Amino acid sequence: MRDFTYHNPTKIEFGRDKEKAIGDHIAAAGVSKVLLTFGSDRIKKDGLFDTVVASLKANNIEYVELGGIVSNPLLSKVYEGVEAAKAEGVGAILSVGGGSVLDSSKAIAAGSLYDGDVWDFFIGKSVIEKALPVFDIITLAATGSEMNTYAVVTNEKTQQKFSIASPHVYPKVSVVNPELQKSVSKEYLVYSAADIIAHSIEGYFTASYHPDIIAKYIEANISTVMSTTETLLADPDDYDARGEFAWAATQALNGTTTLGVAGYSFPNHMIEHSLSALFNVAHGAGLSVIMPAWMKWYHKQNEAQFERFAKNLFGKSTAMEGIEALEQWFDKVGTPTKLSQFSIKESDIDAIVENAAANAKMFGLADTYTEDVLRTILKLAL
Amino acid sequence: MRDFTYHNPTKIEFGRDKEKAIGDHIAAAGVSKVLLTFGSDRIKKDGLFDTVVASLKANNIEYVELGGIVSNPLLSKVYEGVEAAKAEGVGAILSVGGGSVLDSSKAIAAGSLYDGDVWDFFIGKSVIEKALPVFDIITLAATGSEMNTYAVVTNEKTQQKFSIASPHVYPKVSVVNPELQKSVSKEYLVYSAADIIAHSIEGYFTASYHPDIIAKYIEANISTVMSTTETLLADPDDYDARGEFAWAATQALNGTTTLGVAGYSFPNHMIEHSLSALFNVAHGAGLSVIMPAWMKWYHKQNEAQFERFAKNLFGKSTAMEGIEALEQWFDKVGTPTKLSQFSIKESDIDAIVENAAANAKMFGLADTYTEDVLRTILKLAL
Repeated sequence: MRDFTYHNPTKIEFGRDKEKAIGDHIAAAGVSKVLLTFGSDRIKKDGLFDTVVASLKANNIEYVELGGIVSNPLLSKVYEGVEAAKAEGVGAILSVGGGSVLDSSKAIAAGSLYDGDVWDFFIGKSVIEKALPVFDIITLAATGSEMNTYAVVTNEKTQQKFSIASPHVYPKVSVVNPELQKSVSKEYLVYSAADIIAHSIEGYFTASYHPDIIAKYIEANISTVMSTTETLLADPDDYDARGEFAWAATQALNGTTTLGVAGYSFPNHMIEHSLSALFNVAHGAGLSVIMPAWMKWYHKQNEAQFERFAKNLFGKSTAMEGIEALEQWFDKVGTPTKLSQFSIKESDIDAIVENAAANAKMFGLADTYTEDVLRTILKLAL
Repeated sequence: MRDFTYHNPTKIEFGRDKEKAIGDHIAAAGVSKVLLTFGSDRIKKDGLFDTVVASLKANNIEYVELGGIVSNPLLSKVYEGVEAAKAEGVGAILSVGGGSVLDSSKAIAAGSLYDGDVWDFFIGKSVIEKALPVFDIITLAATGSEMNTYAVVTNEKTQQKFSIASPHVYPKVSVVNPELQKSVSKEYLVYSAADIIAHSIEGYFTASYHPDIIAKYIEANISTVMSTTETLLADPDDYDARGEFAWAATQALNGTTTLGVAGYSFPNHMIEHSLSALFNVAHGAGLSVIMPAWMKWYHKQNEAQFERFAKNLFGKSTAMEGIEALEQWFDKVGTPTKLSQFSIKESDIDAIVENAAANAKMFGLADTYTEDVLRTILKLAL
């Protein structure tokens, strides 16, 4: 284990009906007015919105609505939220939705207590020093945002999908009720599975030093995601599988899987962010395309870990057999593995390379991920 | 996953030299005077005490010493600490030592802000509503006390080894420096391994519902403990193995391995506490004796999980083969597996049964662990 500091202050409220007490948690924090963020109006049809509002009202908490947050959430919406939060003087952000809503809410929380442009935080021009408290009800298990410091937002003007990381945006309380997650489409379920697997493998394969115990936790998360995805495709109402899938999602990116790990990076995310930014590809779908291609390009740099992956996840012997088994599993459950499935052609690669090369600078990976390397990887994904 | 709330506010400072900043953490919490608790004078000889005091002085933090805390820590010492903390008006407890020192410190922290007898908390006569903040430098990896709500103390007058559990005694900051743990004897290393394995298997085997993902984490912890124990017996200076052993210890009892688990209990700990209370047996050594015996008595009640254990940890097929493999491993590394190794004889069993039956009431397990059952298990351990 290399040196680390770990302090994850998020309280997780996991289980059925936990959303009914969300107002109690907010009131306990001394907050009397929230910005209530969400995506589509679906939560108004399925009753979740009413449940949340009832809990707020029971605790005399006022709310201001900010709906319409989309997947690959947009900076313009974050600006709108920051403006509303400042104008209304809210004391917290309450996010009801998936990772996109929560990531936007984190950005709003930080932007609301900042005099400059919230995008400054994403481009490293400024560091987050404070943020409004964030509470959330997470309705899609994938990003792990409910228990981490990250938020990813797309600047639609510059076509940059960038991220922030700050301990100030750890959610105070996150409600994870697997029942609220069962309405997700099969498509988004498998995209989410790919996202969780991507969170798991980035450090696992790229680290210059990786403790065995952390690798074991990661393998536990990946194998849980794979088995529960198959269960849920067959029976979306399987509560136990839904719960384990949700917890694997949280664990895969709440910081526990990089403790004591040295010298790791997120190249798959880096490249995928360009697909999302340029083609509005669903993040998880983009990842299931990039991962096998990246692995084929990269595996010789860490052959032993790839052999371990092949053996422990798929019962295979060689690195390449493991990569192929993962790709076949993606195909089997129905998440894309080729750029052509997004109608992205070889002639589009230059634009992706250009965008990803800019990301590489932000990720501090420009030396490794040159335009030539990016092109090689993307061609493997055609 | 069954419903749960998880909120672990402890900050872990893991790695080399982390103890040098302990005063900074305490000062950051606004504390200017601590009760500095420790065990033997060894820390004064090896330099750790001086390091800690230097960090306190650099932060203008006064300290009052309370040394002499022993393994299976005693209530009389806790009383002494409570009295000193109250008389000196300290703002926090700083524990420098292993689980016994930290458990005593937690009890002192709670007792210092309570008007009654601190033992009230252990016998369920009163509930902990507040406690002084606890900081610690953990010099022996075993109990997981550095990141949990538990403390175990022995009342030497009543021969009761009882525990408390309260969110108010989560340490604020725990320093885990594997280098500070390498001076532990081989004897205590293997006892600690047995303790961590015991923490791991109690819920794993006794739960009425056990999520697969949590079982995988537990298996990761157990296999890490086993492999790193063997590495450390061969080379006590292996820093990486020491680090993974330490982290497995923390993870095995920081609450993460019982999340979503339903209907579990701690029968091995319950019985072992009687060995410690009556014969002052080292806790881990007592556990490695009790576990195989308890498993032989219990396994038919959860045969599938025992078969899983046998397969995933030892590559065996049957429950009994797994139990025997664990027992053989204990023998191999040199932690006791028979009561006779403590010179405890069949004629002593009645006294242990009587003590354990009283524990069973405290653990809420009196219906299952009748005197007959306890006698049966203890006879299997002869």
